[in-house]
Amino acid sequence: MRMDTDYASSVTELLAKLATYGAEKKGGVTRLLYTEAWSQAQIFLADKMAEADLEVRYDSVGNLFGRFQGKSPEAKVILCGSHIDTVRSAGKYDGAYGIAAALTAVRFLKESYGTPKRHIEVVSFCEEEGSRFPLAYWGSGNVVGFHKPELAESLTDSQDISLKQAMEDAGFGKADQPDPFRKDLYAFIEVHIEQGITLERTGDRIGIVDTIAGQRRYVVTVNGETNHAGTTPMAMRKDALAASAEMIHTLEKVAVRAGEPLVATVGSMKIQSNIPNVISGSVEFTLDIRHISETLLNGFCDAVLGMFQVIAERRDVEIDIVTALRSRPTPMDIVLAGRLERICSDHSFSYRRMMSGAGHDAQMFGSVCPTAMIFVPSKDGISHSPDEYTAPEDLQAGVAILAEMLYELAYEE
Amino acid sequence: MRMDTDYASSVTELLAKLATYGAEKKGGVTRLLYTEAWSQAQIFLADKMAEADLEVRYDSVGNLFGRFQGKSPEAKVILCGSHIDTVRSAGKYDGAYGIAAALTAVRFLKESYGTPKRHIEVVSFCEEEGSRFPLAYWGSGNVVGFHKPELAESLTDSQDISLKQAMEDAGFGKADQPDPFRKDLYAFIEVHIEQGITLERTGDRIGIVDTIAGQRRYVVTVNGETNHAGTTPMAMRKDALAASAEMIHTLEKVAVRAGEPLVATVGSMKIQSNIPNVISGSVEFTLDIRHISETLLNGFCDAVLGMFQVIAERRDVEIDIVTALRSRPTPMDIVLAGRLERICSDHSFSYRRMMSGAGHDAQMFGSVCPTAMIFVPSKDGISHSPDEYTAPEDLQAGVAILAEMLYELAYEE
Repeated sequence: MRMDTDYASSVTELLAKLATYGAEKKGGVTRLLYTEAWSQAQIFLADKMAEADLEVRYDSVGNLFGRFQGKSPEAKVILCGSHIDTVRSAGKYDGAYGIAAALTAVRFLKESYGTPKRHIEVVSFCEEEGSRFPLAYWGSGNVVGFHKPELAESLTDSQDISLKQAMEDAGFGKADQPDPFRKDLYAFIEVHIEQGITLERTGDRIGIVDTIAGQRRYVVTVNGETNHAGTTPMAMRKDALAASAEMIHTLEKVAVRAGEPLVATVGSMKIQSNIPNVISGSVEFTLDIRHISETLLNGFCDAVLGMFQVIAERRDVEIDIVTALRSRPTPMDIVLAGRLERICSDHSFSYRRMMSGAGHDAQMFGSVCPTAMIFVPSKDGISHSPDEYTAPEDLQAGVAILAEMLYELAYEE
Repeated sequence: MRMDTDYASSVTELLAKLATYGAEKKGGVTRLLYTEAWSQAQIFLADKMAEADLEVRYDSVGNLFGRFQGKSPEAKVILCGSHIDTVRSAGKYDGAYGIAAALTAVRFLKESYGTPKRHIEVVSFCEEEGSRFPLAYWGSGNVVGFHKPELAESLTDSQDISLKQAMEDAGFGKADQPDPFRKDLYAFIEVHIEQGITLERTGDRIGIVDTIAGQRRYVVTVNGETNHAGTTPMAMRKDALAASAEMIHTLEKVAVRAGEPLVATVGSMKIQSNIPNVISGSVEFTLDIRHISETLLNGFCDAVLGMFQVIAERRDVEIDIVTALRSRPTPMDIVLAGRLERICSDHSFSYRRMMSGAGHDAQMFGSVCPTAMIFVPSKDGISHSPDEYTAPEDLQAGVAILAEMLYELAYEE
């Protein structure tokens, strides 16, 4: 199987055009769920799907599908794609590449090999990032029945608009639209930029994901006592910020000691009073901990939260810990991963098996159907930034591997 | 000398009335420099000074004086008072008490002993807190010639209004108003709430300040690398927040080891990107370090900033340290302090010599004229809060000591 250069340039063209929807002056792209930029990007993709003679439809939450109907009507569907939404001031590749790659691969298969046995659907999931509403995987999660419908009413964005309202304003949530829940899936394949530096460091062109790391997020609140920075002796302080600093430093030390692939991050803090000459009376900080082993992840979290309790007790400050997210590690299908290894070898692409520290739509499908995830390198590991970049030859490599995988699943089996 | 209860209740009444200017629904008081609440409070005090037959005048920056003219026209002036401005959501006592005490003591002396030899002036300084503009001691600093006039043009508040503009809008800064700079001072006496817990802990009613601590303020900026919290191994991070946490924890450890009266505080942080699943690329935090010994203060600051450099180098993050404030420790006059001890003994008030960790207008006068500072207890050490409280009998004790001191200085010498 050999793709000519038209298909290769098609991916970069699609990415360039997608990046015009939600483009910002400083070079970033912002397409939050159900916004105008998001709607226009979906319409653009729907047009591209129609141009490729795919059957286009939206489901009732706004996931967009382009169906390449196979020969056997009763056959199950090979689903392939990623998400169209972005974080704020995102790059051009995260999510968008997975859709552009799927569309290009399917167009190539259609034009080269005609109708497959099984159906293939290209999907542009409405939401994965959790940037507008405080939840993630609204698109893929609805396809696998992960989300409760009530969520749409209770969750609001920063403007106090409910998810339900935003969905309806964008033209979705109607009774006559197809339900997103699917029982007809044969496999799910997602191509994505790595968003890390592993492939760049090892010089491999393709990453074959073994496992998507499990994740715990906590919000830790430390309550001490606001006091005057000049008149309160060190020994009489209940400094919430100093206590938090000790906890954050402790977390880092034990995370380094735990070794790869564990990662633990405090990325966000809210400080009261946040005034230079006032001892802080209250600090809230977030905790993001990930590992591919559920057992080790649980053990580490228990240990760290226990250490935080000890630090709080020694300092006589109060601590409150709320779990904000628990996602289990999701293994990818070992048979599909093995086939991807063989395909990479056949194409003479250097590859490596690896974990994904980032969450992806693929983790929604891991327990529903055989699921595979293919990574291509990210320059300097940069993602969620206008500086996100993957070289065209790496983008092409991902499409070539995807096309081969889809061919085997849809035409040969 | 014995004050009857009218004078005692006068102080609490003055404080209660002053607290109505800038009163907030939740019980706090906010009187930022040159605001309407501030102007009304000064007008209220001017009326009270006039009622007490004092000669009332403002200087050109808005300091308010009530002059009790002595017998000798060529005599120097005993200045006595504190500041009328507040932090946001302040209590009723910080600053206001020193003015109310001075006004009450002078009224008592006038009504009990007639005209003194020297002049006494009650002062309500326009500004001490630094809450509206990024400088402090705008009132007392102008009296001693500490501030450069250009400051008024270059400093702006959060609404981008310059200090000069605000001053003019409040009716000051005019050529025909008296220049604030004074060369005629014989002594400066300030009564103030302690804003700490020392007196409450020791059970003493009066604190006689030996030294106002010197202070250093720094702004520390740590620049690392923004990265994905899920895909960046611990060993490859340049986490600005984790680096800052280690610095803050180190600061606290060495400050505790240095022992009293050193205090060191990080009260404020700005975090980029401040998102739970993003490794922070840049953090700015403030450092507030105080000690009564200039040598020990310098030595400690040099040591700590050196440790920060070492931490930054080890972590391969950049660090930038800007000095935001340097104030030297200011010793109070030892003769006046000795006389205050005797006066306390005469009145059977338990007292202690102590330092002030907080900055005060008195520190502006320490190198200009003999200066004394009298503290009364603060309940639970709370200050800069609506919960600020000092018991009426403690307020009275401060007024009694002040009146005696003023009597000795103005009538006897």
